[in-house]
Amino acid sequence: MIIDCHGHFTTAPKALEDWRNQQIAGIKDPSAMPKPSQLKISDDELREAIETNQLRLMKERGSDLTLFSPRASFMAHHIGDFNVSATWAGICNELVYRVSRLFPEHFVPVAMLPQSPGVDPATCIAELEKCVKEYGAVGINLNPDPSGGHWTSPPLTDRHWWPIYEKLVEYDLPAMIHVSTSCNPCFHTTGAHYLNADTTAFMQCVQGDLFKDFPTLKFLIPHGGGAVPYHWGRFRGLAQEMKKPLLAEHVMNNIFFDTCVYHQPGIDLLNTVIPVRNVLFASEMIGAVRGIDPESGHYYDDTKRYIEASKILSAEDRHQIYEGNARRVFPRLDALLSSKGL
Amino acid sequence: MIIDCHGHFTTAPKALEDWRNQQIAGIKDPSAMPKPSQLKISDDELREAIETNQLRLMKERGSDLTLFSPRASFMAHHIGDFNVSATWAGICNELVYRVSRLFPEHFVPVAMLPQSPGVDPATCIAELEKCVKEYGAVGINLNPDPSGGHWTSPPLTDRHWWPIYEKLVEYDLPAMIHVSTSCNPCFHTTGAHYLNADTTAFMQCVQGDLFKDFPTLKFLIPHGGGAVPYHWGRFRGLAQEMKKPLLAEHVMNNIFFDTCVYHQPGIDLLNTVIPVRNVLFASEMIGAVRGIDPESGHYYDDTKRYIEASKILSAEDRHQIYEGNARRVFPRLDALLSSKGL
Repeated sequence: MIIDCHGHFTTAPKALEDWRNQQIAGIKDPSAMPKPSQLKISDDELREAIETNQLRLMKERGSDLTLFSPRASFMAHHIGDFNVSATWAGICNELVYRVSRLFPEHFVPVAMLPQSPGVDPATCIAELEKCVKEYGAVGINLNPDPSGGHWTSPPLTDRHWWPIYEKLVEYDLPAMIHVSTSCNPCFHTTGAHYLNADTTAFMQCVQGDLFKDFPTLKFLIPHGGGAVPYHWGRFRGLAQEMKKPLLAEHVMNNIFFDTCVYHQPGIDLLNTVIPVRNVLFASEMIGAVRGIDPESGHYYDDTKRYIEASKILSAEDRHQIYEGNARRVFPRLDALLSSKGL
Repeated sequence: MIIDCHGHFTTAPKALEDWRNQQIAGIKDPSAMPKPSQLKISDDELREAIETNQLRLMKERGSDLTLFSPRASFMAHHIGDFNVSATWAGICNELVYRVSRLFPEHFVPVAMLPQSPGVDPATCIAELEKCVKEYGAVGINLNPDPSGGHWTSPPLTDRHWWPIYEKLVEYDLPAMIHVSTSCNPCFHTTGAHYLNADTTAFMQCVQGDLFKDFPTLKFLIPHGGGAVPYHWGRFRGLAQEMKKPLLAEHVMNNIFFDTCVYHQPGIDLLNTVIPVRNVLFASEMIGAVRGIDPESGHYYDDTKRYIEASKILSAEDRHQIYEGNARRVFPRLDALLSSKGL
C-alpha cells in the first residue's frame, strides 16, 4: 500500500471560499457574519471535487491512501479571533471528514486546529478531541506561527504548547508542523514561509529538550524538512557545540520528514542523509507546485517517481517509506487499517 | 589561487566586544556612551587574532585569500538607532581594513553597512563609499532584515533598497545577503535565521523582477543558498506557476551561492543542481560550526575537503569555484589581483 501522508483539501468547492470571505467581512460588520449552516456543499459536489482532482491523480500515479487535512494556506489563523478560527476549523474539519466517509478507502482525516495568535493553545483541545473521537482523525496539523509570518508565538519547546502535546501523547497522535499563509510580504507562502518554518521547527527541537519531557511525542516536518537535510552537517555541528546528544538520540526518535521535495537530486539527498525510518512518503498534491517539469516531462509533485527512481533505496526501504513508517508514526492509522484486515 | 569569499572577523580582540557593550549601555545612559577613540586595539593584537585563528586554518587547509567582513552576528542592526549603527559599522569596517593592511596577501575587505530598522537605506551610502574608496572594499554585506528576526523591512525587490543598488551598480560591487543575530526567540541565529534569510531572499528575487531594473546587480546568497538547491524543483515550479522566465534567465545571471554547506552530500547536491558558474568557494571559517565532525574526523567547516572529494566537479570546475567565479563576481577583487600580477 502507498500512503501519502501529506494532502490538503485544496480543491474544495468555491462555496467554501465564499463562506470564508463572508466570515472575514463579518469580523468588521457582525451583521454580515454567516452561520456555519449557511454553507451548503452537497455530497455530489464533494465527490466531484475529489474524483476529478486528488483521486484521479492518486490513481494515475499509483498511491492508495492520503492523510487528508484542510487546506493549509486557508487555515490563516491570523484572521480574526479564537471564535473566528474555531468556527472555521470546525467547518473545514467536517468537510474533510465527509470526504473520508465518501472515500473511506482513499482518505483518512488529519485535523486542523482553531489556533489564534496570542491565545492559549489549550483552547484547541475541544476541536482536537472531536476530530479524533467523532471524525477518526489520525493526526493534527500544528501551526508554529499562527500570526502568519510574524513569529510572535514562543518556540515549540516552550510550555505554552504543552496542553496540546499532552493530548497528542494521550491519543497517540503525531503533529505535522505546518504553517499557513504568510501575511508578511517578506515571505512568499510556499516558496519561503513553509520551508523556513520547517527549518525553524527542527532547530527549536535541537536547541531544546522537548522529547525528554515527551518521549513519545512525534513531529512530522513537511517539505522534506525544509533546509535541514541539505544542511545536516551544520545541524550535527550545532548540536555538538551545544553539548546535545547526537541528533539520532536527541531528536530523531521523534522527528520525521516527508518526501515533498520536487526533484530527483533533492529526494536523493534526503535518502542519503536521513535514516529510512524517519522518512514518510508524501506529495502535498494538489498543492503549491502543480505544473509539469519541462526537464522530466512529469509533474514536479509526482514524488513517487523520484522514490521509484532512487538508486539508494532497496525494495524494503521503499516499503517503509510508502507504508511501514506511516503506520508506525500514525498508530491510529495503523489500527484503522488493521481493523480492515490491511 | 583559492579564494574564500565568506569570512568574518569573529576573533577580534575582546576589547571590541567590551566597547560594543559600553555603547549599548550608552543608549540608555548617554553619559556612558564611549567614543570610538576609546577603543584601543594594537596592530600586534590584530596580528595575533588573525595569525592564531583564520590565517592558521587557511594555511592548514590550503586557501589563500579570504574576503573578510565584520562579524555578521555582531552587526546587530536592531540595536539602537542609525547613529549607533553608523558608529559601530565605522569601527568594525576600520578593523577589517587594518587586518587587510597587515595581511594584504590574505585578506581583502568586504564592508558591513550601518543599517537600522525603519531607516532609509540611503543613509548607508556614506559608509559604503568610504569603505570602497578608502579601504578598498570589494563587496558589501546587505542585511535584508535589520530588525533581527522580525522581518519588518520590505522585500529586497522593493524600491526601498534601490539607493544601495544604485551604488552597487556604480561601483560594480556584489552584495552578500547576510542577516545578523536573531532577537526573535523562534529563530536560532545560525541554525534557522541565517538559512531562512537565504531562502527568503532567493524567493523574493523569484517573485520580483529586480534584475530587469538592475541587470548588472549581483547577489551572493551564503550558506549554500539556504534551502534553495535542495528544493530546486519547487523553485523552478513556482517560477513556472508565476509565468516567470526559466530561473537560468530570470535570476541566475545575478544570483550566486557560496559553498558553506558542512557535509559532503550537501555540497554534492549543490554542485548537481546549481551551475558551476554560480557557485563560489567559501567556508565562513571561523564561524557557527567550529567542531570536528566525528564521522569524518575533520572540521565541519573545512569545505575545501568536500569540493576536493566531489566526484561531480572537473579540475576546471574546481578552478572556477575556487577562483574564477569570485574574480568575475567581484570585479574589484579581480582588478586588485591583476594589479599585483595575479
